[in-house]
Parts: sequence; C-alpha cells; structure tokens
Amino acid sequence: MAFITALDTLDIRFPTSTQLDGSDAMNPDPDYSAAYVILRTDDAAVPDGHGFAFTIGRGNEVQQAAIHALDHLVVGRSVDEITGDLGGFARSLTDDSQLRWLGPEKGVMHMAIGAVVNAAWDLAAKRAGKPVWQLVSEMSPEDLVAQVDFRYLTDALTPDEALTILREAEPGRAERTERLLATGYPAYTTSAGWLGYSDAKLTRLAQRAVADGFGTIKIKVGRDPDEDVRRVMLARHAIGPDIGLAVDANQRWGVDEAAEWISRLAPAGLSWVEEPTSPDDILGHAEIRRRVAGVPISTGEHGQNRILFKQLLQAGAVDVLQIDAARVAGVNENIAILLLAAKFGVPVIPHAGGVGLCELVQHLAMIDYIAISGTMQGRAIEYVDHLHEHFRDPVRVAGGRYLTPRAPGFSAEMLPDSLRDYTFPTGAAWLQPTTFSAVHQVSAKEHELS
Amino acid sequence: MAFITALDTLDIRFPTSTQLDGSDAMNPDPDYSAAYVILRTDDAAVPDGHGFAFTIGRGNEVQQAAIHALDHLVVGRSVDEITGDLGGFARSLTDDSQLRWLGPEKGVMHMAIGAVVNAAWDLAAKRAGKPVWQLVSEMSPEDLVAQVDFRYLTDALTPDEALTILREAEPGRAERTERLLATGYPAYTTSAGWLGYSDAKLTRLAQRAVADGFGTIKIKVGRDPDEDVRRVMLARHAIGPDIGLAVDANQRWGVDEAAEWISRLAPAGLSWVEEPTSPDDILGHAEIRRRVAGVPISTGEHGQNRILFKQLLQAGAVDVLQIDAARVAGVNENIAILLLAAKFGVPVIPHAGGVGLCELVQHLAMIDYIAISGTMQGRAIEYVDHLHEHFRDPVRVAGGRYLTPRAPGFSAEMLPDSLRDYTFPTGAAWLQPTTFSAVHQVSAKEHELS
Repeated sequence: MAFITALDTLDIRFPTSTQLDGSDAMNPDPDYSAAYVILRTDDAAVPDGHGFAFTIGRGNEVQQAAIHALDHLVVGRSVDEITGDLGGFARSLTDDSQLRWLGPEKGVMHMAIGAVVNAAWDLAAKRAGKPVWQLVSEMSPEDLVAQVDFRYLTDALTPDEALTILREAEPGRAERTERLLATGYPAYTTSAGWLGYSDAKLTRLAQRAVADGFGTIKIKVGRDPDEDVRRVMLARHAIGPDIGLAVDANQRWGVDEAAEWISRLAPAGLSWVEEPTSPDDILGHAEIRRRVAGVPISTGEHGQNRILFKQLLQAGAVDVLQIDAARVAGVNENIAILLLAAKFGVPVIPHAGGVGLCELVQHLAMIDYIAISGTMQGRAIEYVDHLHEHFRDPVRVAGGRYLTPRAPGFSAEMLPDSLRDYTFPTGAAWLQPTTFSAVHQVSAKEHELS
Repeated sequence: MAFITALDTLDIRFPTSTQLDGSDAMNPDPDYSAAYVILRTDDAAVPDGHGFAFTIGRGNEVQQAAIHALDHLVVGRSVDEITGDLGGFARSLTDDSQLRWLGPEKGVMHMAIGAVVNAAWDLAAKRAGKPVWQLVSEMSPEDLVAQVDFRYLTDALTPDEALTILREAEPGRAERTERLLATGYPAYTTSAGWLGYSDAKLTRLAQRAVADGFGTIKIKVGRDPDEDVRRVMLARHAIGPDIGLAVDANQRWGVDEAAEWISRLAPAGLSWVEEPTSPDDILGHAEIRRRVAGVPISTGEHGQNRILFKQLLQAGAVDVLQIDAARVAGVNENIAILLLAAKFGVPVIPHAGGVGLCELVQHLAMIDYIAISGTMQGRAIEYVDHLHEHFRDPVRVAGGRYLTPRAPGFSAEMLPDSLRDYTFPTGAAWLQPTTFSAVHQVSAKEHELS
C-alpha cells in the first residue's frame, strides 16, 4: 500500500515578458508561470502525480503558499484511497472550512486546489496506464456522476439529470473514441491576432493559419475601436468568407461600451466575441448578448467555479462556454461544467495558451466528445504554439487538429531540465538571462496570452 | 516628505476553536485570525497604518504571502502621494496585471489588497487626526466619487448618478453627524443564537440581549429543519413580538432546499434570512426570494467584489445587503457598494464579528448614514462581544448601539502585547496554550462566527 509522502511545489516562470511580440488589452507583460505540484509517493512502483496552477508571473509564489496550505489534507493519505474516489478527494480539499473562508471556491485557494486535484488525476491515470481522457471516458455514468460536487447546482442540474445525459451518450462512446484516435479534435489558433502586429504580419499569419488547416482564427481587440474595425476587416479579407473569425476583448469593456463596440465589429462576421466584460458579470454578458443579437458571446477562462457557469447558462448570457483546465478545482469541477453545458445545449470551446494549458485542456474536450455532449459540432480547442517543448508529452497539432494523446497521465509533466532552468529566481533562465536565452532561444516563437 | 519603508505583516491567530461554545452550519472550528499589515514610514512624525485581512485560521499565511506580493506597489511610494489620492492608490493595487490574474478582484489576492488599502486609510486618518468615518464624511461629493473604480459598474451606476446621490445627502451631513455623535448607530447581536446552545441558554441570552437594548437578535440555522423551527419559535417566544429576529444559514442550502426551509421558518416573523445559499449565486438568491415572497433575503459578507453586489441589486436578489470591511478591496470598494445600494434603495446591514471586523465596519455604516443613504432606518451593525480587548480603540456598544469612535484612524490597530502573544505559531498563546489561557482567560466569552 502506497502513501503520499510529499506535496512538492516549484515556482516555475518563463521570462516571456522580455521578448513578447505584443500583448492583449488587459495583460501587457505576462511571464507565463506555473505553481508546479508534484505528488510524491513512498513506493517506487507508483508514479508521481504532476499538476500546476497557471499564472502570469508575480504572485506565483502566492499560489505556492496556497498549495502548501493543503499539505495536511494530502500528505499521509493512501494512494488507493485518493485514486479510488477522486470525487471524494476533491471535495475533501474544497470542504476544509478554514481554507474555504479564503474563497469560498474562487481565486488563489481554488486554483491551488485545482493544481492538486489535477496532479491526483495525473497520478491515477499514469497508474492505470491511460491518458486522463481515456480513464474518464471509460467510467460508468454512475462513477462519472460521483466525480461531481452538486452543491449549489441542483436547481439547474440534478444527479439524475446528469445520469440521463451520460447514459444517452454511452452507446456511442466506442465509435467516437475510434474517430477521435483516427482524426483528433478541431483546433483554432490565436497566433495571428496580436494587437501590436503590422497589417502585413497579421495578413501573413492569418493566411498561414488557413493553409495549416485551422478552421477558425482569433484576434485581439479592445484598444481602439476604429483600429479594431480596420484590423478585423483586414483579417476577414485575409482568410476569406469560409473561415471562422473570433475576437477577444480580454475583459476590456463595460456593458454599454461592449454593446457599441461589438456592433461596429459585427459586419466582419464573427464566430464569437470573447470576454467582452468582467468574467463575474453574468447579467452584464446577458445584456450585451441581448443588445448585439446574433453575435455570439463567450466567456469562461476566468470563470471562478461551477456556480458562475451555472448562472451564465441560466441567464442565457453566452452562446459559447470557455472552460480552463487550471482555473477551477480540477477535472472534477470541469466535469460538472461540461455536464451543465450539455444540459443547456451550449457548446464548450476550451481556453488554452499560456504554459501547459493546451496540454491539459485537450483531455477535457475529448471527454466531452466521447462521454458527455457526444459531438465536436461547433467546437474547437484553442491552440497557441509556444512552450510545448518543456513538456514530456506535448500536444501534437496537425492539419488544424489536436491529435489524441496516447501517453498515460494528464500530459502535465514538465521535463526535468525545464523545471531546473526556469525555477524562479534561481534557475539559469533568471540568473543568466542573456546567456541562457542566446543558447536556448526560449523566445523564438510568438508568445501571446489568449 | 515621508515615504513608505515597509509593508510588514504578522500572522495573528486566536485559538478560538479550542474553546468554542458552538459553531455555525458551515464553520465548525474557526480560529479567528488576522493577516495583519503595518505600513511603516521613514518619518517618526508620520504614524504607521494598520490593517488586516480576516481569516479563520489555516491559510492566514497564504494571505500574508499575498500581502507581500504587493510590496513593489507600496514600498518606496511617498505618503503624500498615497494619502492624497487613495482612489488612485487602490486602483494601482487592483490594476497590476500579473497579480490581477490571480482573481481577478476576488479571493486571497483581493482580500490582501483590502488589508493594504484599509491600512492606508488608517494612516491617512491618523495623520489627519480624525477617525476614518469623519475623514470620508467630510470629503466633497467630487472627492468621494474619485474614490470609486467605476469599471464594470456604469450600466448600474455612473459617476454622475453617484454625484447626485452624494449631493442630495450633503445638506444634512452636519445634523446627522451631531446625531451620530450624540446617540451612536443601532447594533444587533448574534450572541444568543448558537446552534449548540440548550433551550434554557438560548432563552436566557435572547432575553438578556433585549434587556441590554438590542432591537434585533440573530440565530444560526441550517443543521436540521425540525430543530430549527423549534429553536426559532423558542427565540421568538423569548423576545416577544416587537424585537427583530433574523436567522443565518451560512450558505448551507441549495436553492430548492432554501425555499422549503425558509417557508417553514417564516411563521416566526423574520427580519431577514442571511446567506441562504452560495454567496456567488445571484440568480439563486433571486429565485429563493421570489419563492418565499415576503421573507427578506440577505447576503454579502462573502461577496467578492462590487461587480457581484451590482448584480445582486440588478437582479432584485436581496432585501438587505451585508457588507464586510475586510473581504473586498477596502474602504474604496465599500464606498462603491454603499453607493450602489443607495441607488437601488436597498438597506445595508454590515457583517461583523470575528476579530476586528466590528472595529472596522462601524466606520463604513457611519459614512453611509452621514454622506450616502442619509438614514439609519431599517439598518443596524452586527455586534459580537469578543476579542475587542486586543484593540487600541475597541468598539463601544451601549444600550444596543455602537457609540461613535472618536480616536484618529480606522480602529484597526491591535495592542503590541496582543500582536506578540498571538503571533502564530511562536506567540505564547500557541507555544504554551494551557498556561497562557489560564492566565489570560482569552476564551471566557462566547465565541461565534457570524
């Protein structure tokens, strides 16, 4: 019988702000970072579990402190107990009454719980010899329902309703799994859309994305309305009428401003308008959506927990939900959100980018396809091409699609050299930034917060 | 010219869980704690500013880490610059884009900002030789509006509307200030209502509260419906028909459960039902309120920021708003919330208790009375009688009313001996708990999370 002996954390930061080509309207200088978690066991035959909270630099050490605040709930527990009831494990972290006060279920403390819960899923999946998407997709509907904390959800989704959704999807699982393994899952790309790009560069990158097989591209807006209209029309011209074009305002607007701004952008034909206002403003999103009738509205990457997502759906506030793998309390809470979205018939288009978010969230989209919504229709996983080289099992994107991961685990594990070199502030990337980046060319690619 | 030289923090915890008489439905064993902040200056003539984030024990060190993450935004700035534009100072803390990612504007990071902003108000008020309530209440309407971050608010409240509210209240300020100084502000008490109390004790304490002059008492509910009905009727019988009786469910219920439970309690005649469900569930509160028509619904002590409060008001979700002095980003964000409440005509009944929350929030209720809503009608400040002895300028409650504080500052400063003895884990209260508590009788009173 194996036990958890340590909940190690590392402060991993990539100095992306020093080499950024541009930025979005709210995040001018992100250093993509991970408050990295390793669940260690006392049995060499039991793999470590890896996970992380994603941040954009300063405050990564606060996330580390929050992860360590969970030590007493994790260290010393048996691996069998944890992996045998991951729903119970997740609830034991969110239910610590003293720590709950720090949220409840939101912000730093909740992201820390997400990191640890995801690390436990990594461990469970490695132990089972399966990728997380497969481990979850093979669970019975009853076991899947047991992953979810239904507290504060039952006015919108009961366990019985969840069971019905999962049972309806059950007969098609095998066929969809085969299809997924054969053809992967659609991706969309945010590589073309920097605010700071020249017209020529925007056009070139947008056209390259289309040539690479992406069916949708996304560009950043929110700095200046006239300039946005011009750039959005430029992008539409570059990609032609048949490729999806989304825009992302990164929470830049108030409600009235959003409605006016979006109305001006709408003629370009938009797949969705992302984060038009505060991620907390459920009623604001509903009002914006009402005023720009016909332009799809999306949010969710900063959505704090399942209770917020529930209300976005109840209020008819969004056309598209965007989950993030590392913002809420891990796989379990994201299963809750996927079930809610299925109940309300709203497609989920996951947020990714940063560091490692693509690696994680692909599993969740694939779970949704196989076991929950049962469809890829109107869906795609965000893709940004950077920092994947630091992962043991990096995402593979080809022909505009995510290829299905095969390695056991959650694809969350970073390479030992990367963990060493990017530890803040003592790693080589921080101690000798000039020498290090010349050798490693860490910043050759176009970085971007999406 | 004075500068801020340090943002010191202390991990102050009171071992209240070891001696608690009882608990509420969600918080069985709180250790009332403060991630305590001291803003130090390089000029002996300039007072230090004191503030804190309130927690209930574990995780207090996470709050400390979050406070230190703000060092670069505070240390080295001139005192004049900060106290001369506290609205700008508060915005400079919430606008750090890397730290904003950790919320945004919620949870650990936001409470840390609240602690620092409140410490800056303490410093500013001490320097002006006035209590915070007076410093704020003497500001011009224009200066008061400049305290508020209107981002994400203007669909509900514009700066011009705020100005109108403040100007309408201006002529009566002097008269109301005099009245406040003469008679204080109504309090209500939560001392009688422990879940674990015997019938005899509940009756005795409820009757004592009435004899002490309190016009409203509050009791805890949410553990068992039959038992709750019995206890609520017992309390009503003890206090008679003319005293207000509120109940507090501490987020215990889902929407359906809340509606059923409240309907059973309603015949006792309730002043309000507090925190029936998740503090995040705006639509849930609105639905509960609709279903129990006539029973006033309240929430807010865990309300994460002004955007949540805006929506509670827009949705008609509450009859009463309950602000907390240490949950949001300090005095500035609470001014925003008080203005929103005034715009929507909803009374604010502040949450207090814990440690130091009474000391802080009394100032905010008094600001509301003098400069914003202009009335005490249907309002009262929560009062719990414990841990006040640790403060330099403790609240004074007499005849069921808060007496107006006269000392310069925010009443936030703890006594040096208390800071020394309750520092976790090295203070005497933690190193020698048995000896220490025998000598100091720290736990003689009835502690309770309210």
